[in-house]
Amino acid sequence: MAKELKELTSREVNYSQWYQDLVIKADLAENSAVRGCMVIKPYGYAIWEKMQRVLDDMFKETGHVNAYFPLLIPKSFLSREAEHVEGFAKECAVVTHYRLKNSEDGSEVVVDPAAKLEEELIIRPTSETIIWNTYRNWIQSYRDLPILCNQWANVMRWEMRTRLFLRTAEFLWQEGHTAHATREEAEEETRKMQGVYATFAEEYMAMPVVKGVKTASERFAGALDTYTIEAMMQDGKALQAGTSHFLGQNFGKAFDVTFIDKNGKTDYAWASSWGVSTRLIGALIMSHSDNNGLVLPPKLAPIQVVIIPIYRNAEQLAQISEKVAGIVANLKGMGISVKFDDADNKKPGWKFAEYELKGVPVRLAMGGRDLENGTIEVMRRDTLTKETIPVEGIEKYVKNLLDDIQQNIFQKALDLRTERTISVDTYDEFKEKIEEGLFVMAHWDGTPETEELIKNETKATIRCIPLEGDKIPGVCMVTGKPSAQRVLFARAY
Amino acid sequence: MAKELKELTSREVNYSQWYQDLVIKADLAENSAVRGCMVIKPYGYAIWEKMQRVLDDMFKETGHVNAYFPLLIPKSFLSREAEHVEGFAKECAVVTHYRLKNSEDGSEVVVDPAAKLEEELIIRPTSETIIWNTYRNWIQSYRDLPILCNQWANVMRWEMRTRLFLRTAEFLWQEGHTAHATREEAEEETRKMQGVYATFAEEYMAMPVVKGVKTASERFAGALDTYTIEAMMQDGKALQAGTSHFLGQNFGKAFDVTFIDKNGKTDYAWASSWGVSTRLIGALIMSHSDNNGLVLPPKLAPIQVVIIPIYRNAEQLAQISEKVAGIVANLKGMGISVKFDDADNKKPGWKFAEYELKGVPVRLAMGGRDLENGTIEVMRRDTLTKETIPVEGIEKYVKNLLDDIQQNIFQKALDLRTERTISVDTYDEFKEKIEEGLFVMAHWDGTPETEELIKNETKATIRCIPLEGDKIPGVCMVTGKPSAQRVLFARAY
Repeated sequence: MAKELKELTSREVNYSQWYQDLVIKADLAENSAVRGCMVIKPYGYAIWEKMQRVLDDMFKETGHVNAYFPLLIPKSFLSREAEHVEGFAKECAVVTHYRLKNSEDGSEVVVDPAAKLEEELIIRPTSETIIWNTYRNWIQSYRDLPILCNQWANVMRWEMRTRLFLRTAEFLWQEGHTAHATREEAEEETRKMQGVYATFAEEYMAMPVVKGVKTASERFAGALDTYTIEAMMQDGKALQAGTSHFLGQNFGKAFDVTFIDKNGKTDYAWASSWGVSTRLIGALIMSHSDNNGLVLPPKLAPIQVVIIPIYRNAEQLAQISEKVAGIVANLKGMGISVKFDDADNKKPGWKFAEYELKGVPVRLAMGGRDLENGTIEVMRRDTLTKETIPVEGIEKYVKNLLDDIQQNIFQKALDLRTERTISVDTYDEFKEKIEEGLFVMAHWDGTPETEELIKNETKATIRCIPLEGDKIPGVCMVTGKPSAQRVLFARAY
Repeated sequence: MAKELKELTSREVNYSQWYQDLVIKADLAENSAVRGCMVIKPYGYAIWEKMQRVLDDMFKETGHVNAYFPLLIPKSFLSREAEHVEGFAKECAVVTHYRLKNSEDGSEVVVDPAAKLEEELIIRPTSETIIWNTYRNWIQSYRDLPILCNQWANVMRWEMRTRLFLRTAEFLWQEGHTAHATREEAEEETRKMQGVYATFAEEYMAMPVVKGVKTASERFAGALDTYTIEAMMQDGKALQAGTSHFLGQNFGKAFDVTFIDKNGKTDYAWASSWGVSTRLIGALIMSHSDNNGLVLPPKLAPIQVVIIPIYRNAEQLAQISEKVAGIVANLKGMGISVKFDDADNKKPGWKFAEYELKGVPVRLAMGGRDLENGTIEVMRRDTLTKETIPVEGIEKYVKNLLDDIQQNIFQKALDLRTERTISVDTYDEFKEKIEEGLFVMAHWDGTPETEELIKNETKATIRCIPLEGDKIPGVCMVTGKPSAQRVLFARAY
């Protein structure tokens, strides 16, 4: 048991190192030979598949369909929307050639200068441009609207400082791109998808989020409004977990996407776009995990229950296996994913540590004494508490326990956030609380200048203007000018 | 009804044009602004999602897990395996820069020459190299083997002549990459996955396939053996629908992936790789569809049953809708996907044509007379036959009908292949039958020279050396030299 624990830096010593150790030790992901690009290992990918399945069902329930658009975007498309190009042209992978050839001495392959593209192609950093260029041909009349497409895809942004899951050059995500006949409908869609993300974060990831709107300077490049969900990580830092953008008619105009409305008038289509990415796996880790390893919410855990036999000899293992077979069948019948680990080349203690590291929510162990007494040992990963209970009715017990763990880790994260969120009225107190790693609610005068000053002096950004909660006016803590409501400040990932 | 039919070129007039018209008219896919890259539209993507779900379950049942590896591959990786680089360096997208900047006059963005990569990166045409470079760190001992990973991903090959689904620069696929301790195990895996593909093709796509092995000149670049499944399209041409490669120790050696075996000896790991792609959608279309549009096998149809009301007024529609609601609920309860199309801006005749075009396997229609008589009209898409039957028990009837359609279209495709497959003994007869568009079984002397000569003279290639069926030796139809068994020749997509 001691082996992994020793190798995992503790959260208290170095949170950032703990995170990185954990991603590696728990076999979630690793860096690849290509700078900034990660390999998502099977266990990490299994979590992503669980997330995908839930989100995809939620998208379909809200009327969306999946489609697929090209990986490459002509360079000139980026320039069509003035703000968009500012935001995305800076850091992108550029394809300039389409062929390699043998070098003259035959020792390697080199770029064939004869195969230079007339116009360079960009690996999509996001797909608004290529999709709106496509929508132009799909939309003629209001009868063609709304278009409610999503795609699951890889995207690439040439980040200089990368961290597994949290910020990588290539990442996996979904991006929804919708077109509407009216401003109201597009805005409603934008808010609806923020709601879907918030539900997913809270009910599946067990991660409480603040729903809000970004300030102008934190908006998506090309959006009129960016709706966000912001979560608090265990170290008090904020993590932007999902965004939904109201794009107005910016892309409709940039790509000349017009339609005839009900009154026979021509107008530009209205747009939204929204996405979440493999970054959510990083958020999941930093919301719940501990010094023993991952703590996964049961609803997203690839393995929900592990059963480990503790035996002296083959005969005893056979007896335990027989008993366990029934439990496994019953749990599977209840839709619970369960693994019986009877591998004989690893000791029980090693297995205990391994599944703690991997964050399996419930561990059952059965030994010789349990056989005699008709009992089984149950360990819950969130609290690491153990108890021995009758094997009769264990399935129902496990089912309830999984629900309880899901609820408990959400409550724990919520309590932490409540404890570490504070309202302040002076800039001095603000600086102190930001330094302590809190979420700080404070009045701000609404100007980008003040926002910038605060950011430069404290490294805190306005995470969002919250949509819910107190909306009492006040005065800006820095300039004393009027403020409509407190906004959420924090240092962020 | 006439509108679409008129616009769809008939198969007899121009098969190739029929295919292209159908892909467009049925809203499956379209060409994008990026040469050779397609947009997969929602209806086409829904078919791909159905395929993915079935295949993914089959992979998992056979012990595989999903993972994700980088999109970009360092140029030098390609050169490590001599044959592999020959096969893939010729046609690939090359990333040379990682930033754009504003042009001096500010009118556009241009490549920033300061942001040139030290080593160019290639968009993966296939992932053996980057994956085996990763496996080096995953594999130390025989205990780490086998590794059975699959990834769902996009890949890119710079094809000069592209056709929607069949051959595109970017396409979606899955690629399995496995590592084993012994040659036997790797070969067994290779054959097992060929079997999985054959089962998928025949039982889900309703597309009969010939299982075989490729000749040396048709092998995957870097493989010791390529196992294939070959299907006959309606025009008699062959389509390679899936391949599974035994890679020997080629990639183990190229990327120095060694392990300590059970006897303490160091050896290179053995490899397989296998893939199917969105090309299967093209194969599906060309296996079953007709001049009225798509014919989809029920097991892969996004909508299995459509119900259309035929009414004179709102009152009648309400009566029909009430009756239909029960049918819809029952069908859904049986796991059948069903759509009730009561849109009032389209006439029944238009809807009939539309769903025929989209290949919905079963169409139900209910009108005023049906209400009186307690009947419903049933049309099956594969034969276009209609009958009016009692509405009582319709759910059971539909369920059986879907099974029957699945079986019937498979049988029809199998009959066509049987009818259009012939054995010949002379090269003259061979040329004649190839010209007629048949699958031709003939003796070949086993040399690449003869294979090349036949290809140049007839455009026919050896699709495979079949694994099943008659293995009677003979003499090559061209050279008269000995031949171990007949091989399958055809012109191919």
